Amino acid sequence: MDASTRESAPPLYQELADKIALLIEQGVLRPGERVSSLRKVSLQYGVSLTTTIQAFLQLEDRGLVEARPKSGFFVRPRLSPSALRPVKLRRAPSVVTVGALQSRLFEAAMLPQMMPFGGAVPAVEMLPMEKLNRLLAQVARRAGSRGVSYDMPPGSETLRREIVKRAMHAGATLLPEEIITTCGGTEALLLCLRAVAPRGSVVAVESPTYFGMLHTLEELGVKVVEIPTDPQTGMDLRALEKILKTRPLAACLAVPTFSNPLGSLMPDENKRRLVQMLAQRDIPLIEDDVFGELHHGLQRPRLAKTFDEKGLVMLCSSFSKSLAPGYRVGWVAPGRFYERVKTLKLTTSLATATLPELAIAEFLANGGYDHYLRGVRAKYALNVKRMRETILACFPAGTQVTNPQGGFVLWVEMPDAVDALVLHERALAHDISIAPGPMFSPHQGYRHCIRVSCGMPWGPRVQKALQTLGRLAHSASS
Amino acid sequence: MDASTRESAPPLYQELADKIALLIEQGVLRPGERVSSLRKVSLQYGVSLTTTIQAFLQLEDRGLVEARPKSGFFVRPRLSPSALRPVKLRRAPSVVTVGALQSRLFEAAMLPQMMPFGGAVPAVEMLPMEKLNRLLAQVARRAGSRGVSYDMPPGSETLRREIVKRAMHAGATLLPEEIITTCGGTEALLLCLRAVAPRGSVVAVESPTYFGMLHTLEELGVKVVEIPTDPQTGMDLRALEKILKTRPLAACLAVPTFSNPLGSLMPDENKRRLVQMLAQRDIPLIEDDVFGELHHGLQRPRLAKTFDEKGLVMLCSSFSKSLAPGYRVGWVAPGRFYERVKTLKLTTSLATATLPELAIAEFLANGGYDHYLRGVRAKYALNVKRMRETILACFPAGTQVTNPQGGFVLWVEMPDAVDALVLHERALAHDISIAPGPMFSPHQGYRHCIRVSCGMPWGPRVQKALQTLGRLAHSASS
Repeated sequence: MDASTRESAPPLYQELADKIALLIEQGVLRPGERVSSLRKVSLQYGVSLTTTIQAFLQLEDRGLVEARPKSGFFVRPRLSPSALRPVKLRRAPSVVTVGALQSRLFEAAMLPQMMPFGGAVPAVEMLPMEKLNRLLAQVARRAGSRGVSYDMPPGSETLRREIVKRAMHAGATLLPEEIITTCGGTEALLLCLRAVAPRGSVVAVESPTYFGMLHTLEELGVKVVEIPTDPQTGMDLRALEKILKTRPLAACLAVPTFSNPLGSLMPDENKRRLVQMLAQRDIPLIEDDVFGELHHGLQRPRLAKTFDEKGLVMLCSSFSKSLAPGYRVGWVAPGRFYERVKTLKLTTSLATATLPELAIAEFLANGGYDHYLRGVRAKYALNVKRMRETILACFPAGTQVTNPQGGFVLWVEMPDAVDALVLHERALAHDISIAPGPMFSPHQGYRHCIRVSCGMPWGPRVQKALQTLGRLAHSASS
Repeated sequence: MDASTRESAPPLYQELADKIALLIEQGVLRPGERVSSLRKVSLQYGVSLTTTIQAFLQLEDRGLVEARPKSGFFVRPRLSPSALRPVKLRRAPSVVTVGALQSRLFEAAMLPQMMPFGGAVPAVEMLPMEKLNRLLAQVARRAGSRGVSYDMPPGSETLRREIVKRAMHAGATLLPEEIITTCGGTEALLLCLRAVAPRGSVVAVESPTYFGMLHTLEELGVKVVEIPTDPQTGMDLRALEKILKTRPLAACLAVPTFSNPLGSLMPDENKRRLVQMLAQRDIPLIEDDVFGELHHGLQRPRLAKTFDEKGLVMLCSSFSKSLAPGYRVGWVAPGRFYERVKTLKLTTSLATATLPELAIAEFLANGGYDHYLRGVRAKYALNVKRMRETILACFPAGTQVTNPQGGFVLWVEMPDAVDALVLHERALAHDISIAPGPMFSPHQGYRHCIRVSCGMPWGPRVQKALQTLGRLAHSASS
């Protein structure tokens, strides 16, 4: 299904949600009654389990069902007949608890023998390692005193100028004075959240969403409300609209271009609507564009920041996916929150490491970054294609895999009987790391899903590891 | 007055506080009455204004006086005769607001023409700049793939091993497994505070204290209670003991070795008592040792961490004062809070920049760090001596200057009629930055004090700038 048909027809989960809502309204399903298992619903209606989960999240939003831990979904008791008209959104924001899983994943990912499908980290073979390290060496010799000195926020002007040039290709007109460099995208995100989302406030996120974001939100004591997200077109704006009507949000956090883990690309029109919907209520959009340069097609997708008229879009990015994770260079264009973010940067890490910043600026200015990007985009596109095909061939029948137009992660939805956490454990024993679905949701849902990174060059070792994984998936039913 | 006499006699401010307390108890000073100005009290009793301020802070602790913004100190209304027996500590913890001043200071410090007395930052001439940058270049070439890859927390093992060796010279037995590398000392401090001091909790700090710490506390919404601090022997443990008896503290944050701005060095026995007093109540001590290697004498002072038996001392340090601020490499040994701090590091900056870490590890292992330190310590000792003498010669009569045994900052107490904020503005107009006293206290007290960095090589330019500053101080009376 391409983007244009999706625009006209309601998403599948919406149809399913409407069907079940009807059953509840007609009294076929009674208040307090347990809804049959998600798996049964999915079989009964001939839709995927992910679609079923998204339908139930929406029913929960509409106040029709409620989730009870380890028991499934129940029809909500009606308080009064009028309580359901107009439809009310009642999903309680969730406290996040993914930290422990994240730590284990990173520890596993650091073992040298591991096949690192778990982390969305580019393999060193994909990075312009020698050139970058050589540039760093040159810059270190040349920079002299500047290299050992603080580069106080907003950080290297050369780098900020280069960032501005690149943002222009993505449709956004920025000024170097609007940008602050950071210790990677993680710090950029942290600073934005600290600037606008106090402890106890609620932030809307994509579902499923990158566990690192959930972890940061968890540590800040910020709650999240999950918005169903389409693997092609990204965050469901109708669902977001409903939330906006009923609940004060401190911010919306999204990856509009090649979301993680789904790889969704919001159409420009959706990006515009997203920005406008939030702007109407003065709610900041934290736009993470960390995969934006890694489009598989010819066109660099536009930034949501392009449509920002009120300075409410806080654009975060980094060079960790495209150049060098270990250099820890990211940046943020925080719009009207510039001063807050700059002040927070001072009390978080004071400054970004000078020489890595300068080396990356040099790479962008004179290192053939575009040439490198053209090459690596083609490699990722090929990796994604081959790994996707191998997974479809080796995994249990009924497995579905996303087909992203950029980035290098795949979201694999296995038959619902396969338990991703069991698979995760067994895969580790075979020196294969994966990211199990429950990491991508504060509900720890998506138990039959995994994220597989395609950040390493295709070859027999990768193929064999995927085959092993497929074999393990056959036997990892719960 | 040397440390041994201080140990037996009560500090001067204590005597003064007792005298004024007697006046209040005898009814000479009545409830609600304004106490005459601090300057008058200081003249009347023949003590310095800093001593007078500390006496009043203690009287405030004892519930005898209260500060009203811009009006001075007033005798507290008595609720009942019994309210004063036993002595009660009632000083309300303060919300901190030094951020704006800090930002201005940093902006001024970045201007190249400025004489940077304001920031406690070593001038590049004091740093082994060429050697470090050369090592970084070597490491970058040699490290290959490692250089561009994440060095996930706890960070470089080589560096952690070198840190362990150095901590041994300072009396502390650490293991590499107890250490986590950070983006400078600022991040180390932030992680410790986030681990143990939730929003709204109270942390005890030295008074005066480094504004960067106050700023971090401010941004975290943590309140502070200031403990009077002696320029020779550091935090007043009797005052801390009183606070401990009456108020739950989330942590105590101190710089026991060459505090900033006073340059105090706590005697070993005080360090031991500090650790024990806090341990009795299970309160963490965040020990910042960022100046510890820069002792002017032969002996490396011991760490308070040496006396840590319960894993409650969270030791923070960095290489920003001794090697390269711009490399952004610090570290923390967080004791029993290791796992919390490591998890927080993941959500704050994910990892520390790899190559700067490795270059510093190489410098420590094979770069002649000890040789370099011996040289630079002598330079700082000489700078401090000469700048101190020049200040005493040029500044208005009655000016007092600390005489630190390590580090490279001086605390200058001018006659109380001199307004440090006025002096700060006028000095900027002469391209001289200083750190005005009010930055070092959440009360914005110490208005007649400034901190002067001696982090640059002595020479005619420094001498002339100090003379200019002295001349300005003569005319900067409020």
